[in-house]
Amino acid sequence: MPSVAERILSEKVGEPVEAGETVYVEPDVIMLHDGSGATALRTLRELGVERVESPEKVVLIFDHSVPPSSVEAANRQNELLEFARRHRIEHVHVDEGVCHQVLVEEGYAGPGRVVFGGDSHTPTSGAASALAFGFGGTDMAFALLYGELWIRVPRTVRVHVEGELEEPATAKDLALTVVGELGAGYADYAVLEYTGLPERMSLGDRMCLCNLATEAGAKSAYVPPKEGPEELRPGDADEVIELDASEVEPVVSVPHRVDDVRPVGDVQGVEVTRVFVGSCTNGRYRDVRVFTEILEELDGPHPDVRIVVVPASRRVLERMTEAGLTLKLIRMGVMIAPPGCGPCLGEHLGVLGDDDVCVSTANRNFPGRMGSRRAEIYLASPVTAAVAAAEGELVDPQDVLG
Amino acid sequence: MPSVAERILSEKVGEPVEAGETVYVEPDVIMLHDGSGATALRTLRELGVERVESPEKVVLIFDHSVPPSSVEAANRQNELLEFARRHRIEHVHVDEGVCHQVLVEEGYAGPGRVVFGGDSHTPTSGAASALAFGFGGTDMAFALLYGELWIRVPRTVRVHVEGELEEPATAKDLALTVVGELGAGYADYAVLEYTGLPERMSLGDRMCLCNLATEAGAKSAYVPPKEGPEELRPGDADEVIELDASEVEPVVSVPHRVDDVRPVGDVQGVEVTRVFVGSCTNGRYRDVRVFTEILEELDGPHPDVRIVVVPASRRVLERMTEAGLTLKLIRMGVMIAPPGCGPCLGEHLGVLGDDDVCVSTANRNFPGRMGSRRAEIYLASPVTAAVAAAEGELVDPQDVLG
Repeated sequence: MPSVAERILSEKVGEPVEAGETVYVEPDVIMLHDGSGATALRTLRELGVERVESPEKVVLIFDHSVPPSSVEAANRQNELLEFARRHRIEHVHVDEGVCHQVLVEEGYAGPGRVVFGGDSHTPTSGAASALAFGFGGTDMAFALLYGELWIRVPRTVRVHVEGELEEPATAKDLALTVVGELGAGYADYAVLEYTGLPERMSLGDRMCLCNLATEAGAKSAYVPPKEGPEELRPGDADEVIELDASEVEPVVSVPHRVDDVRPVGDVQGVEVTRVFVGSCTNGRYRDVRVFTEILEELDGPHPDVRIVVVPASRRVLERMTEAGLTLKLIRMGVMIAPPGCGPCLGEHLGVLGDDDVCVSTANRNFPGRMGSRRAEIYLASPVTAAVAAAEGELVDPQDVLG
Repeated sequence: MPSVAERILSEKVGEPVEAGETVYVEPDVIMLHDGSGATALRTLRELGVERVESPEKVVLIFDHSVPPSSVEAANRQNELLEFARRHRIEHVHVDEGVCHQVLVEEGYAGPGRVVFGGDSHTPTSGAASALAFGFGGTDMAFALLYGELWIRVPRTVRVHVEGELEEPATAKDLALTVVGELGAGYADYAVLEYTGLPERMSLGDRMCLCNLATEAGAKSAYVPPKEGPEELRPGDADEVIELDASEVEPVVSVPHRVDDVRPVGDVQGVEVTRVFVGSCTNGRYRDVRVFTEILEELDGPHPDVRIVVVPASRRVLERMTEAGLTLKLIRMGVMIAPPGCGPCLGEHLGVLGDDDVCVSTANRNFPGRMGSRRAEIYLASPVTAAVAAAEGELVDPQDVLG
C-alpha cells in the first residue's frame, strides 16, 4: 500500500503519485509568519506582481518579533497587515502565539490536510495528522501567487516506538534521542512517520516529536490519528527504525549541534545562567505545568539563574493563568514573556551574552542561535530545564526526582 | 524657614546650605540601572580605577532591557553582575521591575532620604518624600568611587493644588497639565514641590506627579509625607504656583513635545494603532486596574489596536494576577510583557514603526523615543488610553464614560 504521504498527495493531485516524483500541489493552508511573510512580500514586489490566488487559504501569524522588537519588525508587520487588507486575507493572528501552535489550535491543520508553511518547523502539524511542509519565504511567494507549489513527493522513514517512557524521561527526550541516533541529515526530504507509542501520546507530545523531525532533516512528519479513516493509517515505508521507549533516558543536545545528544549525566555540573521554557517544541500547557511543579518541588530557582517562560500561544497563557501557574511562576521570580517565539531565535526577550549558558526547551542550539556565538545552548525537556533552574547547573533529573 | 531640600541637604552636609550653593553630598542611596550602570562601569575602566566606596548604599536594578533584548544588553548585564559580586554590592534586582518603582517598593527611598540615581526620572522617589536627584552614568561613576557627588542645592518651585480632581480626570492629567503650563524648561534645576491635594493622593498618583516633574526640567520633586516629622514639612519656596484640580480635564501631550498639552477633545478622532500601558509614570496596580475595567466596560479593544501592558514591577504583576486582571487582559487579547521599562525607550517589547500612532501612559513622546522617528506618540492617562484602545482613535473620556 502506498505511504500516507503518497495517498494524501495523490488525492490532492488527482492521480496516483509516488515518492520521488515532482508534482504541483494545491495545499489546503498557506501559512506565513512575520519573517517569511515579509520575504514573500518582498519577492512579489521584486517580481512586480502582487496577487493572491487563494486568500481564503492564507493564514498570517505574527510570532517571530511580537511585540515588535525593532522599527524594522514593526514596519514589516504593518506592511503585512496592509497586504492582508488589500487582498482580503482574513485569517490573521497578530498577537496569538507561535505559528505552529496556532495552526493546530485553530484547526487549520487537521487530519489529511496539506499545509505549506513558511517556516522550517512546519512539520509540527503532523502531530494533528496533517501533511505539512516547510518552505522559505521566496517559495511561499509562489504559493501566494498561484495557490500551488512544485514539490517532490517525499519518501517515508518510519520510527516505530515500542514500550512506554519511564519518568523522568519525556517525549522531548525521545525526540532528541531519535535525532541523535539518526543524525542531522538522515531523514533528508523524508516524511518522518511516528507509530506505536506516539499514536497514544498527547497532542502536545506528538507536536514535540514532529517538531524535532526537522532537525533530522525531514521535510515533513506524521503521526496517524488515534481514530481516523483507513486512508490516514500508515502504509508502506521506505525504512522502519525500531526503538524501545523504556530505554530512553533524560538527554540534552550539547553545544552546538542538535544531533549531539548525550545523557544529562554525561554533562552533570555544567553551570547554567539562563533557562528558557517555551517555543513550538515545548511551550504548551503541560510543559509549563511540569516545569512549574518541579521548580516548586525543588524550592524555586537558583539565585544566579534567570528564567524566561514563553507560552506557545495566548490560549496556553490563558490556561496556565486560570490554573494558577502564572502566579506561581511570578512569585518564584520567573519572567513570563508574551506568547510567540520568544528568545528562541535570538531576536529579543532573553538574548544570550557571550558567557551565558542556557538550558532551552526549544529546538536549535547552533552558534549564535539565541544571541552571542560564544554562548552555549543545551536543548532539554521541561523536566531537565526545571532541575537545572533549581540547581544552577545541569543535573540528571533521575538523581533529583523521586 | 529654609526649604525642605535645603534642610535635608544641610543635615547631610553637616552645616546650613542654601539654594544656589554647590556642595558635596553623600547620598543614602546610589542607584544604577543596566543603562547607566554600564556607562558608570565603562567610565571607571577608562579612569583605570575600579573601586566602590560605599557598596552598602549601591542599588543595582535592571529594567531597561529585561529580559535582555540584544547580545550587547546581555553582556552589559552580565558584566554588572560580575562587578556587583567583586565589590560585594548586595542590593541587586535583576528581573524585578522599573528602578523607580523598585526603589520605593523596597523602601530604599523613604522620607528624608537622599537618593542619587543614574536616571533622569529619579525625582519619582519624591513621592515617598525622599529627595532624589537624577544623574548621567558618568557622574554616577564618581558616586561609586567616592560615595558622594558635587551638586548645586536646588531652588524650590511649589505647585499648590486646591480642590479635587473630577472623574475622568486623573493624576496623570494633573501632571501633564502642570508640565504644559510650566513648559519644558521652567523648573530647570529646581525641586518641584507638590502641596495640597497631592499630599492626600495615593502613593502611585504621587509617583506619577513627581515622575513628570522631570519633563518640566526639575532636578528633583517632592511631596511632603502625610504624617511626618516637622522637618519634612514644606518650608520656603522660591515661587508658588496655584492650581485648581477641579478645572483639570483629560489631556494628552501631542507629538512631539511633552509640554504640548491639549484637551483630548482637541485631537478627537486621531486613529491609533498601538497602546502602551506601563512605565515608571503609570505602570502601577491601580493604573492597570483602571485600564482593564474601562476596556471591559467598552467591550474590549478595537481589532486594529495592538496593546502592551507592562507592569512597573514584579509586585505589581503579582497583585494584578492575584486580582484576576492578568487573566482578563489575556482574554481581551492584550499582551502583558515582563516588568521593566518595556517599549518606553524604543528598545523592545512594542517598538513603533513608521506609521504607528501610539497612546502611551509613559513620560516622553520625542521623535524616535519608542522606535521610528516618524511614529507619533500621545501621552495620556490610563483612562484615556483605555478609551483609545477600545475606540481605535482618540476620544475624550468625558464623552464616553458615565
